[in-house]
Amino acid sequence: MNKKLKVGIVGGTGYTGVELLRLLALHPNVALTTITSRGEAGLPVADMFPSLRGYVDLAFTDPALANLQDCDVVFFATPHGVAMSQAQALLDAQVKVIDLAADFRLQDVAVFETWYKMPHSCPAVLAEAVYGIPELYREQIKAAKIIGNPGCYPTTVLLGLAPLLEQGLIDLAAPIIADAKSGVSGAGRKAEVATLFAESSDNMKAYGVAGHRHHPEIHAQLTQLAGKPLQFIFVPHLIPMIRGMLTTIYVKLSASAQSLDLQALFEQRYQHERFVDVLPAGVFPETRSVRGSNQIRIALHQHAQTGYLTLVVVQDNLVKGAAGQAVQNMNIMFDLAENTGLEVVPLLP
Amino acid sequence: MNKKLKVGIVGGTGYTGVELLRLLALHPNVALTTITSRGEAGLPVADMFPSLRGYVDLAFTDPALANLQDCDVVFFATPHGVAMSQAQALLDAQVKVIDLAADFRLQDVAVFETWYKMPHSCPAVLAEAVYGIPELYREQIKAAKIIGNPGCYPTTVLLGLAPLLEQGLIDLAAPIIADAKSGVSGAGRKAEVATLFAESSDNMKAYGVAGHRHHPEIHAQLTQLAGKPLQFIFVPHLIPMIRGMLTTIYVKLSASAQSLDLQALFEQRYQHERFVDVLPAGVFPETRSVRGSNQIRIALHQHAQTGYLTLVVVQDNLVKGAAGQAVQNMNIMFDLAENTGLEVVPLLP
Amino acid sequence: MNKKLKVGIVGGTGYTGVELLRLLALHPNVALTTITSRGEAGLPVADMFPSLRGYVDLAFTDPALANLQDCDVVFFATPHGVAMSQAQALLDAQVKVIDLAADFRLQDVAVFETWYKMPHSCPAVLAEAVYGIPELYREQIKAAKIIGNPGCYPTTVLLGLAPLLEQGLIDLAAPIIADAKSGVSGAGRKAEVATLFAESSDNMKAYGVAGHRHHPEIHAQLTQLAGKPLQFIFVPHLIPMIRGMLTTIYVKLSASAQSLDLQALFEQRYQHERFVDVLPAGVFPETRSVRGSNQIRIALHQHAQTGYLTLVVVQDNLVKGAAGQAVQNMNIMFDLAENTGLEVVPLLP
Amino acid sequence: MNKKLKVGIVGGTGYTGVELLRLLALHPNVALTTITSRGEAGLPVADMFPSLRGYVDLAFTDPALANLQDCDVVFFATPHGVAMSQAQALLDAQVKVIDLAADFRLQDVAVFETWYKMPHSCPAVLAEAVYGIPELYREQIKAAKIIGNPGCYPTTVLLGLAPLLEQGLIDLAAPIIADAKSGVSGAGRKAEVATLFAESSDNMKAYGVAGHRHHPEIHAQLTQLAGKPLQFIFVPHLIPMIRGMLTTIYVKLSASAQSLDLQALFEQRYQHERFVDVLPAGVFPETRSVRGSNQIRIALHQHAQTGYLTLVVVQDNLVKGAAGQAVQNMNIMFDLAENTGLEVVPLLP
Repeated sequence: MNKKLKVGIVGGTGYTGVELLRLLALHPNVALTTITSRGEAGLPVADMFPSLRGYVDLAFTDPALANLQDCDVVFFATPHGVAMSQAQALLDAQVKVIDLAADFRLQDVAVFETWYKMPHSCPAVLAEAVYGIPELYREQIKAAKIIGNPGCYPTTVLLGLAPLLEQGLIDLAAPIIADAKSGVSGAGRKAEVATLFAESSDNMKAYGVAGHRHHPEIHAQLTQLAGKPLQFIFVPHLIPMIRGMLTTIYVKLSASAQSLDLQALFEQRYQHERFVDVLPAGVFPETRSVRGSNQIRIALHQHAQTGYLTLVVVQDNLVKGAAGQAVQNMNIMFDLAENTGLEVVPLLP
Repeated sequence: MNKKLKVGIVGGTGYTGVELLRLLALHPNVALTTITSRGEAGLPVADMFPSLRGYVDLAFTDPALANLQDCDVVFFATPHGVAMSQAQALLDAQVKVIDLAADFRLQDVAVFETWYKMPHSCPAVLAEAVYGIPELYREQIKAAKIIGNPGCYPTTVLLGLAPLLEQGLIDLAAPIIADAKSGVSGAGRKAEVATLFAESSDNMKAYGVAGHRHHPEIHAQLTQLAGKPLQFIFVPHLIPMIRGMLTTIYVKLSASAQSLDLQALFEQRYQHERFVDVLPAGVFPETRSVRGSNQIRIALHQHAQTGYLTLVVVQDNLVKGAAGQAVQNMNIMFDLAENTGLEVVPLLP
Repeated sequence: MNKKLKVGIVGGTGYTGVELLRLLALHPNVALTTITSRGEAGLPVADMFPSLRGYVDLAFTDPALANLQDCDVVFFATPHGVAMSQAQALLDAQVKVIDLAADFRLQDVAVFETWYKMPHSCPAVLAEAVYGIPELYREQIKAAKIIGNPGCYPTTVLLGLAPLLEQGLIDLAAPIIADAKSGVSGAGRKAEVATLFAESSDNMKAYGVAGHRHHPEIHAQLTQLAGKPLQFIFVPHLIPMIRGMLTTIYVKLSASAQSLDLQALFEQRYQHERFVDVLPAGVFPETRSVRGSNQIRIALHQHAQTGYLTLVVVQDNLVKGAAGQAVQNMNIMFDLAENTGLEVVPLLP
Repeated sequence: MNKKLKVGIVGGTGYTGVELLRLLALHPNVALTTITSRGEAGLPVADMFPSLRGYVDLAFTDPALANLQDCDVVFFATPHGVAMSQAQALLDAQVKVIDLAADFRLQDVAVFETWYKMPHSCPAVLAEAVYGIPELYREQIKAAKIIGNPGCYPTTVLLGLAPLLEQGLIDLAAPIIADAKSGVSGAGRKAEVATLFAESSDNMKAYGVAGHRHHPEIHAQLTQLAGKPLQFIFVPHLIPMIRGMLTTIYVKLSASAQSLDLQALFEQRYQHERFVDVLPAGVFPETRSVRGSNQIRIALHQHAQTGYLTLVVVQDNLVKGAAGQAVQNMNIMFDLAENTGLEVVPLLP
């Protein structure tokens, strides 16, 4: 307990980076030792993010000069492709790795290369990587050296559907449909016209309708949970809010499922999960109820005549959808209580 | 052309009321003669809505003192139940009626009474009423004395699906699913905690999952367009934007439809419609592209492997979804060019 | 340390109430024992505020049945006028009182009665009350039985100007001007048209230009700090953000002040204050840098030719401007470390 | 009336560009002939701005290929420095020029060069240019060949103070203080981190406190209106709204002014101005009351004890603060009714 983990962050200037810093700054078992940034080396982190004044005293380090091998664990909060170039060396130095980008999420290298337009440089490491949703893969995470932290959208769809797929309760002759809505921070802290305030405020749109990178990731995981092929339609939307993600999922129940008490099934499945909250029947969640926290909340509604079930799942895309889940994974990997540093009451209003 | 229609508005203090005023104030064939409000009688309209200073000089009139029989047409921008109490008397006085509430939308009185929790007081007038979507019922509107102006959600779903349903191209064994997103003005200008800025900003939620008043309205109209029974799942969501509605629709295509050029089908169906814009293939609309205007924009995407089609439809909920469509209906009823007073370039950004 | 304070909250359904709950739920020295609400008695608190699910298990209690005398301290997060009706009884029972409304802020009863339109029912208690800004009145707070917790606007103006007024560095022949901007949560969680999302989003306005309740409160405190009469102009504005307050203050420096290093003066004045952050010269704060936290940040700029100084002060109106400061006061009253339960990293983005 | 002006726009991809297009598309006396963009040549304008579908059929033209000499008038909606490089050639071809950037706003070339960090390439043209606020310089605009269209902030300050300065009613021993608040569209349609939705939503800040480009522009114009030197403090703030600007101005009245009926003075000064609306005493404007329109609204409040006057001025920064005023100037230059194409009812809500 007393000994602190030495933690490094590669790429601390984006939203997942600052969110990791927010959570780790108060984590009782963490000593932040290094935060790298190619472009901002030398700049005190709190000069870029004044919210961290008084909490983070480090300056950004040039990646070339960072002694990441001395860390116990390194988080990559970088663009896709960075972690895979450094992972092997860190693992060789007995440093555990948690990648918040996509390098270690897709076990099928061809699929990765199609969607991310780059060759995968370390398929051997990929083969060792564990997909980091604790509620699905806790035992593997405990033993893992490297985690592919899931995308924000996948976390909502997979935790929403796991109780049904694990029990074979979905009629997979019909496609699973996920209509997902994300706050704008999901697009990252990049200078782009499309996510300017004056472009995305008082406005909304669907995007990636013809194909989105999280589609293959979710599809692969759903297939694994189902243990058989299935069809999956995924339409993400951009919503004028900073944080927050709400995914509405439509599935056709199997004949046997239609007479089950699915509310009870969900409550039982997640009764020991600190961060998964199944709402009482008839109550539906709003995104602000998890703002800033690692909670994910799930509600379900059965449409009697149609045999369909609607699920509504909310999370903070930067916490359970990214940095919070990464810290949860770290806690598990280092045998800490899973909620250490993650007991933050959501900010409402 | 020179003679102006005498226009009255009952209930001018809500969002559909002020939107009617915005559009009618510059309508070249309209003379606003009366705007009633029980609570605000005597108050100059522009004192309540300073945006109308210099455009609307009238004060609100006590409904009891308003000579609505002298109008050529009266719009009801009132809560549900008001129009049906006054419609017969106006029709007897040869005044045409356009109701923006629900009194004349549902031909099945029992369904109306179930959802709106009030008896229907004039079923005979209801039988005469025309459902006011010009692109579907133009000829009937031309001859109508009374219009049930559609709800905002229904307009998006019905115009999105009409080209398919008219041609029998949907496999109705699967439910039609409409995942709809609305700006907060759709909830009206009522003092309620749930729609306060501090409650609904930076936040979103699904609501009415177990049942929403627009479900039976849409279901009835879809059934009529299809000419046969169908199943319909409808989940509305509240989005932190003032105006704007985006509805994402998922349907299973019939076997024969899957090989058709549906893009061309939609373009042809709406090629002469001033206010329906089918976007080029691969382009998806954002809500601000119609802000303040009567346009509705539609895009479609076919998911090859699943046999499903996704439609994305946007409108300004207060214009094509309410007041603009009402003015469009008025223009048709009085044989004016359908776009008169409605050529407003959307406000972007 | 081990013994927990028994804490009661009167009026837990508003924004200052839920904010107290957010902070106190994780406070290591607090046991929440009672939360009252006349209208919501019996309702689990977390049913109204789902953000508190898993953190607050209490239900609202009918005020008539609440045993507040058993508490160590009671917070009033109520409309003005409630605390003064109950304070004497609580004090008699050795319960300390922290009122977040205005009942104990203004020592001049006549001024209170003019602005709050009600008689003051316990001037004797008022005479004992301490104005709760720890950075100004820490010693008195330590000994206080009852605190008048300051309004949100006053905290920004008073902490912004204290270093100057304490040293007599303002030329009081010119009025002090405070141009203040507040997020909408400052208006409270009340069903009102003016603070609806569709009214206050993408919009801003000045209000209370001819007179605002915080004017006399600030004026009285400024006068006390200055030790002499002064003129004060205060114009608050409503800004479309949930939380956050930014006050821009314009003062004429005294002749002697114009050659001082005011940056150093401010840094020294607040060097030991955990919650007051004087930004480096040339850096100006944004409101989100304190979102959810008890920090207040101050920046200053001297206009050489005019002899004027501009101050920019930001805080979270619900934390340092209300509930956070109240908890800070509680910590002081009960001899706890002043930052106990208040080390929350601001939520950015 | 029948003959249409041939209008060109240089730089049509920013917010002032698309706003010009919105207004000019429906202007009865305008034929849009050319819209240039270096980066987007060939792209249909409506592909970039779908709001213009059906209203603008032109594609962007390469500036090198644009026959701007054939236009009657050319608007520059470009970065600073472009108009001055092309103005002389256009004037030589008898084309009138309206520059929405800063090239022709500051008569003092040295001041321009200090603030805009570039040499002024055509001081001779500058000497001919008229500062384009019709309510102050209508006669000169009528005769002008080239207009320096004012910045957004200056328009609010100058129209707010003109009635007082013209009559010598301000005590100029005290500085004039303008605390200005702008929506984010004022920063333009540029890919920058600081104006991303996730950065500027639910947030506000002061900026340019130590110096802003509009300070010298306003200072020069104020000095001209006053006819004598004065001191001016200007602090702009960024507000999370798309459009809208509210400027709060604090001035010390001269002794004689303090007993005048200033409300009447303002009403008389602007009684024949279509676009300047002096609100009734005691009523203060909100920015949405002018959203999308060329109106500017002014309210005033006299602080009895201090001798100070507070002015609150609102406009839509993209209309009266930019494109609308430019069209108003064009109307005057070509002897059209000043409100032609500008009668747009503000969009509320």
